[in-house]
Amino acid sequence: MKLYDLEASGNCYKVRLFASLANIPLEVMAVDFVSGAHKKPPLSDLNPLGQVPVLQDGSHVVRDSQAILVYLAGSHGGLAWWPAHAQGQADIVQWLSFAANEIEHSLCAARLVKKFGQPLDKSAALAKSTVVLSLLDKHLECNDWLAMSRPTIADCAVYPYVVLAPEGGVDLTPYTHVVRWVKRMEGLPGYLPKP
Amino acid sequence: MKLYDLEASGNCYKVRLFASLANIPLEVMAVDFVSGAHKKPPLSDLNPLGQVPVLQDGSHVVRDSQAILVYLAGSHGGLAWWPAHAQGQADIVQWLSFAANEIEHSLCAARLVKKFGQPLDKSAALAKSTVVLSLLDKHLECNDWLAMSRPTIADCAVYPYVVLAPEGGVDLTPYTHVVRWVKRMEGLPGYLPKP
Repeated sequence: MKLYDLEASGNCYKVRLFASLANIPLEVMAVDFVSGAHKKPPLSDLNPLGQVPVLQDGSHVVRDSQAILVYLAGSHGGLAWWPAHAQGQADIVQWLSFAANEIEHSLCAARLVKKFGQPLDKSAALAKSTVVLSLLDKHLECNDWLAMSRPTIADCAVYPYVVLAPEGGVDLTPYTHVVRWVKRMEGLPGYLPKP
Repeated sequence: MKLYDLEASGNCYKVRLFASLANIPLEVMAVDFVSGAHKKPPLSDLNPLGQVPVLQDGSHVVRDSQAILVYLAGSHGGLAWWPAHAQGQADIVQWLSFAANEIEHSLCAARLVKKFGQPLDKSAALAKSTVVLSLLDKHLECNDWLAMSRPTIADCAVYPYVVLAPEGGVDLTPYTHVVRWVKRMEGLPGYLPKP
């Protein structure tokens, strides 16, 4: 399987992290982001949204980091990471939506402004980051993992932009339960350090 | 099952629409949004994000409209709407992320500004709406449905804010393939009209 990848992208890191944890071999294809290769054919034919990561497994193509996690876990990762029953899947999808929406427009956006100079609303991103981290901290006060009392693709979807948050000017130290969860993630067999 | 609901919310409409299409009975509990009931106990205990919809099925609680679709389809809706295999699930999750992120910050945001006076960036929301509808239109040029060549929860997640887009000042008529898909949705047995 080929992963079209950008090393610095937290969304790509979600996929590389999970593949490493679940021991799934991927052929990582570095995308020339500076020249805009992700917005031109052949990559824009694979993903009309012009984003990475994109996974290509034979003739099957999956865009969107959350969908790629579901695909890899469901087809290669085993039931530990993405169960077959509706209750567990829904518990996880709550956090996949949280990663796609709340985290994208808070921790991820703050990093895009500070590290990559993107013209986004920095103060709004920082304010939302406080809300997001407070919600996560409260959840992790009573839970070791985000869903199902064990590591799942929910943790792989949420962890990257949390651990990269300091690059956006967000301090994690007040969120003690988040910090402990970060350490638990780092202790998992096959853990892949952040880019 | 109880659905904590706001009639005017597109996110709640996703759930009511799917429940109607899949013939799943729900006890709809109207939330007093004006008085902020969604941000206070007991509802904020069910969903710390302070949002509706929330589904309560006995002792099990699901927040986030996309996750509720997965839960209802997986537990009550049958494999037609949410298949058991990774390829189909990933195809659908691509569109669940699109609904949670791209649509939320375009069509949904434009409607929140125009219809409900929320202080969001209207011009950014309208610009993103054009991108989102163009992407959808291109996809629907070659596909009758968003995923798996048949109606799935992907359509139920994306359709509501598309059909409500005119309430945000967005004209759908240039997007002829989107308009045809809207008509296909409206022709499904059990279709529930927009709020």
